[in-house]
Amino acid sequence: MVGVAVVVGVGPGLGLSIARRFAREKYTVAILSRDLEKLTKMAEDIVEKEKSGQVCAIRIDCSDSKSVKEAFEAVNSLGPVEALVYNTNTPFPWPPPKFTEINVESFQRSITIPCVGAFLCVQQVIQGMVERQKGTLLFTGATASMRGGAGFSEIACGKFALRALAQSLAREYQPQGIHVAHIIVDGIISSARYNTIREEDAMMKPDTIADIYWHVHSQHKSAWTHELDVRPFPEKF
Amino acid sequence: MVGVAVVVGVGPGLGLSIARRFAREKYTVAILSRDLEKLTKMAEDIVEKEKSGQVCAIRIDCSDSKSVKEAFEAVNSLGPVEALVYNTNTPFPWPPPKFTEINVESFQRSITIPCVGAFLCVQQVIQGMVERQKGTLLFTGATASMRGGAGFSEIACGKFALRALAQSLAREYQPQGIHVAHIIVDGIISSARYNTIREEDAMMKPDTIADIYWHVHSQHKSAWTHELDVRPFPEKF
Amino acid sequence: MVGVAVVVGVGPGLGLSIARRFAREKYTVAILSRDLEKLTKMAEDIVEKEKSGQVCAIRIDCSDSKSVKEAFEAVNSLGPVEALVYNTNTPFPWPPPKFTEINVESFQRSITIPCVGAFLCVQQVIQGMVERQKGTLLFTGATASMRGGAGFSEIACGKFALRALAQSLAREYQPQGIHVAHIIVDGIISSARYNTIREEDAMMKPDTIADIYWHVHSQHKSAWTHELDVRPFPEKF
Amino acid sequence: MVGVAVVVGVGPGLGLSIARRFAREKYTVAILSRDLEKLTKMAEDIVEKEKSGQVCAIRIDCSDSKSVKEAFEAVNSLGPVEALVYNTNTPFPWPPPKFTEINVESFQRSITIPCVGAFLCVQQVIQGMVERQKGTLLFTGATASMRGGAGFSEIACGKFALRALAQSLAREYQPQGIHVAHIIVDGIISSARYNTIREEDAMMKPDTIADIYWHVHSQHKSAWTHELDVRPFPEKF
Repeated sequence: MVGVAVVVGVGPGLGLSIARRFAREKYTVAILSRDLEKLTKMAEDIVEKEKSGQVCAIRIDCSDSKSVKEAFEAVNSLGPVEALVYNTNTPFPWPPPKFTEINVESFQRSITIPCVGAFLCVQQVIQGMVERQKGTLLFTGATASMRGGAGFSEIACGKFALRALAQSLAREYQPQGIHVAHIIVDGIISSARYNTIREEDAMMKPDTIADIYWHVHSQHKSAWTHELDVRPFPEKF
Repeated sequence: MVGVAVVVGVGPGLGLSIARRFAREKYTVAILSRDLEKLTKMAEDIVEKEKSGQVCAIRIDCSDSKSVKEAFEAVNSLGPVEALVYNTNTPFPWPPPKFTEINVESFQRSITIPCVGAFLCVQQVIQGMVERQKGTLLFTGATASMRGGAGFSEIACGKFALRALAQSLAREYQPQGIHVAHIIVDGIISSARYNTIREEDAMMKPDTIADIYWHVHSQHKSAWTHELDVRPFPEKF
Repeated sequence: MVGVAVVVGVGPGLGLSIARRFAREKYTVAILSRDLEKLTKMAEDIVEKEKSGQVCAIRIDCSDSKSVKEAFEAVNSLGPVEALVYNTNTPFPWPPPKFTEINVESFQRSITIPCVGAFLCVQQVIQGMVERQKGTLLFTGATASMRGGAGFSEIACGKFALRALAQSLAREYQPQGIHVAHIIVDGIISSARYNTIREEDAMMKPDTIADIYWHVHSQHKSAWTHELDVRPFPEKF
Repeated sequence: MVGVAVVVGVGPGLGLSIARRFAREKYTVAILSRDLEKLTKMAEDIVEKEKSGQVCAIRIDCSDSKSVKEAFEAVNSLGPVEALVYNTNTPFPWPPPKFTEINVESFQRSITIPCVGAFLCVQQVIQGMVERQKGTLLFTGATASMRGGAGFSEIACGKFALRALAQSLAREYQPQGIHVAHIIVDGIISSARYNTIREEDAMMKPDTIADIYWHVHSQHKSAWTHELDVRPFPEKF
């Protein structure tokens, strides 16, 4: 039996594709986000398309440690977690605001969700992974993981911090058999929102990125990738 | 008349040396930290040694936006701020804890102080700098700004996030005449605590690092440094 | 029909595994190195094990532009090149020499082989790839691609330069449909030489790394990886 | 008595300013480049303006190890070398050429001059520095030290390699008391060539950059900078 794959931060884009990819490989899949109604529809959709036995929709608020704990009680009851994908997205306004227009609650939140949220989720599963000497932690980074652009302090602070967390976890847990990877998604993921403003080929298809997550998860422990970038072919970088 | 230099995070080490360095150059200096009693003694000490006219001790709690606002009302009443040095230190336990032993309040705090605290302080002074088209923001980084080591997730997440903030600010404000620099202090600063365990030459003297802060602040706008590292000569890196 | 995969720098380790991996996928494979005798045996070995139709052994001296041109006349006669893997290895003495002990011929050579050699090989195939709007260039990096260690100036200078070349090629050719990736192999690849001094699991198996090269080559153009690292699970980094 | 400062790669811009800066501090200065006639005029100019006692013009071809050795015999006869500044410039055509238009001799040369040239020059002075446990090696980097842009493979390969050399030297020699720094000059240095196409303030003045070289050389060994960037205030990065 394969184990449980957990995807935190599941909307109709990359999160859904990753969940579907693990479902296709016969994992029991838990999908988590704040909107249980949408989650439930996505879970049904995955089961139908992938003929997968078990996809669980679980509500989570990553800014609330109590909510995270409760959500992972449900997750852990499904079986041993083999993969945790932390994929929350920081929505950012466009055009980017002036620094002086950002309020502190928004700024604080922009760090809490990606980084403290990831911290909390990892704490709920890592002990079991260590005991089984097996598991994968995958974190979704962004262009802003490597570069603090003008007007992007919110997303950059959160994503830099998440990258630091991924490194610290890799250095502590990889020698114990837990694979930790940070995937820098550098470009726009195609979606209903963007399809009208940019030609399709210039954007990343969620399913093709999900294949990369799956590949990283599947790597043999003698050759693990900790960090990689992903971008569509015409993307400037 | 030279203006005001503000140093946030002043203990008996680097913060004090930086404050003293600006006092020597006839700046009005505001020194801020949580412990007003110690601050006051340090202020007196600076005035006496540097024969400087004005050093103000102001209490601040960088995790509290109200406290930051009040502190900077006092700061701004001293005159136009020409330099803001954000130098708070994240104390970290030694040996580094296991990831599973870190509690979420401590983790949240380890990001809030360096990064949200810096955000708040910059917001109190940046508008005035922009209006005067002049000013310097200096941020103290660490080894953990560049590398998330095993057991160091707390300090690394905060310091990575601070580096992102510094980059975002540099890219937004340098074209407006505000110099933003991130100084990576990579090594142990000599102090009473460490002098017994490591030979003196292998540690950084706070005064010599302060000279570097001063140099960066003094750079002409045609040749600004945004990032530099500092370490004692025998330090491995 | 699939096209031609070229692997430059084929010894009994990673190069051979990559060649075998492409042969398994029914590519016509050209393997190149200086030692035609060993190459020929490896070619026979691949054909036998992978039941692959065509594996060509071609002699090349990457420090000699004439030799590179002749070798690639043979390569290009096999059909359209779809993948070029540049995998030459800089042998380095252990323990690392003092800087003052390195002679200039050796130093010059240590840059010429990885970087000028790669330059020459790419020039032989890139025009065809551009015309077909299709192709992959894969470069083998090392720990020394990211860090110039004490005593490792030779390998680091060459590998840093190769990384620069990979970036320049990616930024020029990815928008034209050519995938360019730089794979940082950070650790020891298991081989007869090392198997006695380090436990097997702590080293990278060539076949598992070759799977990663294959994965990168297989990525859809909407989600290309330009850089990734690979290391065995217990490797410090 | 202060010692000898050597500047390799002296044209009318940054190299000249650095030489002048050390002359002002009463160093015996050796200036080296391929054009002895221009060098001699610059030497006279420095002596006149800085009232400095000794500035020697010495011909060097950094691509020729014999020429380097002869040049440094002259250099070393002046006294103990305290600072070596390696500041050769790779001229690059504008607009940047297509990769396929670069010929191998040009490419080879673009790596040899910055990196092998630096290797050769350092080898002529490092032993003396080690014996005196004192000395500074300063290397001029560029935007292309950190990023291989489309069309910039020549300059990027050479500058990446030079950065690797600087790191290797720092890690080997800093513990022995030799300061090694890599200065990333990110932007256009003002000169007759550029002054017509860009407003003056948007370019770096050579003298202000030279101040930074001097500052780095002057740092106390308890707080050494290994790498820093420099750019004019409006420069995008």
